[in-house]
Amino acid sequence: MSETEHAASRPLANGKSRIDFQTDPSRYRHWKLKIDGDIATLLMDVDEKATLFEGYELKLNSYDLGVDIELADAIERLRFEHPQVRAVVIRSAKPRVFCAGANIRMLAGATHAHKVNFCKFTNETRNGIEDLSEHSGLKSICAINGTAAGGGYELALAADYIMLVDDGSSAVSLPELPLLAVLPGTGGLTRVADKRKVRRDHADVFCTTEEGVKGKRAVEWRLVDAVVPGSKFDDAVVAQAKAFAAASPRNGASAGQGVKLSPLERSFSADGVEYPLVSVDFNRTTRIATVTLRGPAAAPPASADAMVALGAEFWPLKLARELDDAILNIRLNELDVAAIVFKSAGEPAAVLAYDRFLEANKNHWLAREIRHLWKRVLKRVDLTSRSLVTLIEPGSCFAGTLAELAFASDRSYMLAPTLPSPASGGGSGRGGDNKPPAAIALTDVNFGAYPMSNGLTRLACRFLADPAAVDAAKVEREKMLDAETAEELGLVTFALDDIDWDDEVRVFLEERASFSPDALTGMEANLRFAGPETMESKIFARLTAWQNWIFQRPNAIGDEGALKRYGTGQAPVFDTKRV
Amino acid sequence: MSETEHAASRPLANGKSRIDFQTDPSRYRHWKLKIDGDIATLLMDVDEKATLFEGYELKLNSYDLGVDIELADAIERLRFEHPQVRAVVIRSAKPRVFCAGANIRMLAGATHAHKVNFCKFTNETRNGIEDLSEHSGLKSICAINGTAAGGGYELALAADYIMLVDDGSSAVSLPELPLLAVLPGTGGLTRVADKRKVRRDHADVFCTTEEGVKGKRAVEWRLVDAVVPGSKFDDAVVAQAKAFAAASPRNGASAGQGVKLSPLERSFSADGVEYPLVSVDFNRTTRIATVTLRGPAAAPPASADAMVALGAEFWPLKLARELDDAILNIRLNELDVAAIVFKSAGEPAAVLAYDRFLEANKNHWLAREIRHLWKRVLKRVDLTSRSLVTLIEPGSCFAGTLAELAFASDRSYMLAPTLPSPASGGGSGRGGDNKPPAAIALTDVNFGAYPMSNGLTRLACRFLADPAAVDAAKVEREKMLDAETAEELGLVTFALDDIDWDDEVRVFLEERASFSPDALTGMEANLRFAGPETMESKIFARLTAWQNWIFQRPNAIGDEGALKRYGTGQAPVFDTKRV
Repeated sequence: MSETEHAASRPLANGKSRIDFQTDPSRYRHWKLKIDGDIATLLMDVDEKATLFEGYELKLNSYDLGVDIELADAIERLRFEHPQVRAVVIRSAKPRVFCAGANIRMLAGATHAHKVNFCKFTNETRNGIEDLSEHSGLKSICAINGTAAGGGYELALAADYIMLVDDGSSAVSLPELPLLAVLPGTGGLTRVADKRKVRRDHADVFCTTEEGVKGKRAVEWRLVDAVVPGSKFDDAVVAQAKAFAAASPRNGASAGQGVKLSPLERSFSADGVEYPLVSVDFNRTTRIATVTLRGPAAAPPASADAMVALGAEFWPLKLARELDDAILNIRLNELDVAAIVFKSAGEPAAVLAYDRFLEANKNHWLAREIRHLWKRVLKRVDLTSRSLVTLIEPGSCFAGTLAELAFASDRSYMLAPTLPSPASGGGSGRGGDNKPPAAIALTDVNFGAYPMSNGLTRLACRFLADPAAVDAAKVEREKMLDAETAEELGLVTFALDDIDWDDEVRVFLEERASFSPDALTGMEANLRFAGPETMESKIFARLTAWQNWIFQRPNAIGDEGALKRYGTGQAPVFDTKRV
Repeated sequence: MSETEHAASRPLANGKSRIDFQTDPSRYRHWKLKIDGDIATLLMDVDEKATLFEGYELKLNSYDLGVDIELADAIERLRFEHPQVRAVVIRSAKPRVFCAGANIRMLAGATHAHKVNFCKFTNETRNGIEDLSEHSGLKSICAINGTAAGGGYELALAADYIMLVDDGSSAVSLPELPLLAVLPGTGGLTRVADKRKVRRDHADVFCTTEEGVKGKRAVEWRLVDAVVPGSKFDDAVVAQAKAFAAASPRNGASAGQGVKLSPLERSFSADGVEYPLVSVDFNRTTRIATVTLRGPAAAPPASADAMVALGAEFWPLKLARELDDAILNIRLNELDVAAIVFKSAGEPAAVLAYDRFLEANKNHWLAREIRHLWKRVLKRVDLTSRSLVTLIEPGSCFAGTLAELAFASDRSYMLAPTLPSPASGGGSGRGGDNKPPAAIALTDVNFGAYPMSNGLTRLACRFLADPAAVDAAKVEREKMLDAETAEELGLVTFALDDIDWDDEVRVFLEERASFSPDALTGMEANLRFAGPETMESKIFARLTAWQNWIFQRPNAIGDEGALKRYGTGQAPVFDTKRV
């Protein structure tokens, strides 16, 4: 069975050749972001013709990845452009329907890879809504006036508070299993069990009842927080939003006007993408993407106000946005890439200076948002199903925040200075050029600012067997650590000298590209996340892995499967064996 | 794609029609269990001809499910028949090889369902080895004199202490990914990351290196606990076993002679299995298996000595063994069963009396082992990929230990007494017979003795949202709770009266059988395990789900996939897309 037998790749709509994650409110087709004082409203009003792919319509506020890209963008803008907002209401502009969930025809016609990547991105967006609440104090309300089915209810589950109109018909439901023979794959099962803590037998009934649950039972079973008669619904939503805003610790008016997230400067070529601070180079033969990050060209600004004045040009913010876009582009548009090689160019000391600046200003709303953005971008890296490797060479700047990329990688290689020889006079390890020897450097951010989805810092997860190794590394903060020291501290996988470097790295990358892509995905998903699990990590582990399995099973995707037969009038035919 | 296109079901060897989980040392073909004072040796010496299925040979101590059934049996006998044993050494009787892992030709020719069930059972066996150490103090050593590859190393990972001979060639390895494009699926990745806490980049190197790791590096990377030169190996193993035995809190000589696990009495018919205390009835039309458990016929024995004298006839031990066998038979031999309905017959008060007896004697080795056996059998139920439902009717005895089956079920239905009417005179709710009304009863065991794989009791997991509900239930211990009370306490899903009972239950079971079996498996695997994850639960969630996904991917199982092409001399051809 080839991928295409089951799911021919649909062409992108409007002749596009690539899924683009950049948008802005002026281009939204599906959402309206309204700001009224400290309360924002995200109004879902899906344009059924404005699909990402050809071949389906987004009826009843159903969504595809294109709809979710706008939602993710709006959430980012709430963080950066609207620091005064303290509560957000998510609701529908359409009558009698909140959201019908992921579009079924889109799913039925999608490749396996797109299904998986679609779910991963939508999960990240919903986790981002929860992160916005937990860490930035911007509370969310989902106001459901109509039906919230499947992914519609899963979106609601990401909110802090779910309000359902009590009109005898509005209901919440997860009809994926009875209707489509798949799981609610955007966190639904995990959030029902672990966030809403719905009793497991109630959850069982709920998830197997196509029409869902409404009214009083929806509250009793903890599926929603309140049901309100239609006549009082709007007032109740406003009252709840005001209460959230009043209790929010977020910024307030002192935060000023926010920072405009200007469009990213990018140029795509056949074999790469160029951003001001990030270069992506695709080697189509070796199936390697090399992502090079550039360190800051100038010292940090003199003050927090100066940082705000720089806005989206401020180096850490600009770099994080470019890196995020680069990773998403590889994930969704460059499926043949086997491994991502991270490189960097710049002064490690200059990177540390920015980390110190952000640390000194960590109570400033913008500094805080930038650090949370880096946290989320690094989590995106952790969850990227490509082999990740960091090459630490002379002239690189894997320090502080950027050193996290080395710790997020499956392996890291660091070039050690060659021994002095009469001929070369020694040197940095790459042909005697003038670059200083490779260094890696740690700072406070490596010990707390950027937890992984399992709640641990990358260093704590790395040294699970030996917490003292974390302490030993902590002592070395702010120092330029050479290859030998970095290897001793366990910060890099291999320190290699010039003689071995090219061959070792080449052989490793060739080997990686020769392995089964699926097996690598599974192995990396297991080895990257030692230690505890959180709701977030359970979504990407237990739930996602089972959903991916089901997305391969003939009962869902076969020609007689439920996903394929939905809407045809023909009942699906199932292989009755329980596995 | 049908299941059979990828993996034609092999016939069982020797014309057998069913996989049997019952064996005893006199019938072992692959293991020798030797007891020497307080130290046992489990010697692996696989008979390559004695395969479970036709069509392959078990060379180099490779194994199939038949080999593992013997291992699981031997572990149970160490618990019950050899209470004086305090340490066990697992080693190979073959030269230069410890164990080559799961047999590849067996795997390549197995159905998807068998692969999944094979991994599940072998995982349960390895978890049992760890449970034996953690809860019964019987420590294990794996002595590797030769190569331990794949499942061979995964078996070693279940031991408390891994010793590797240092001879320049003996190595441990997980070559599944480079060799077969699958994962080490028997806990390997999870135990490397979470038990041995191998640093993630070292784990990455190890799991992608076909030849594995040997000597000093194996210790440095935490893959083994000791490497010992060949000349000193046997002495070192003995010394370590003696040290473990000396430090073990287990029993000692006072435990006496142990209890013989006599062969189960069973009779199989076309539509059922009859044991003295368990009846299994298969309805081939509705795809329902009804498992009826019978309560004790007599009061508990007068003393712990009398319990030992009863041995395998002691009601809780006998029932647990029969239930375990019944569940395994359904799992492996009855793939078409959509749901298991648990029923019981007996006096709830009589069941409670046995729970009190075990509680009063919980420091006696046999009582302790019986409770740990129940814990493991109940975990087996939790992990059974069939819908589980408990019907609590008049004459049933879901009390204490047996009530756990209701809490392990996806749903439970309890029959409420009908209202008195002039015509019927009221009654128990089923046609006015003489049975007392349905009751459920709790006792101490429901609040700690039987944790799930996530570490929580079933009631704590059930009431994750409301720990006070656990306390409220605790107050009601030792009482016969009627349907209304049980529903109020949240102990059952639905209390129904006689008028609704038959229809509601029938409709539910019909509906269940109509859903996609795969989607149900995935849903139940998510909803049953709310709350924390442990190493054990991560094995059955993150690792297993990813492995099951990979077991469906063409890169592994397709005609050009690695599993199919292994040993053919042809290299596998991979779809290079990363998903």
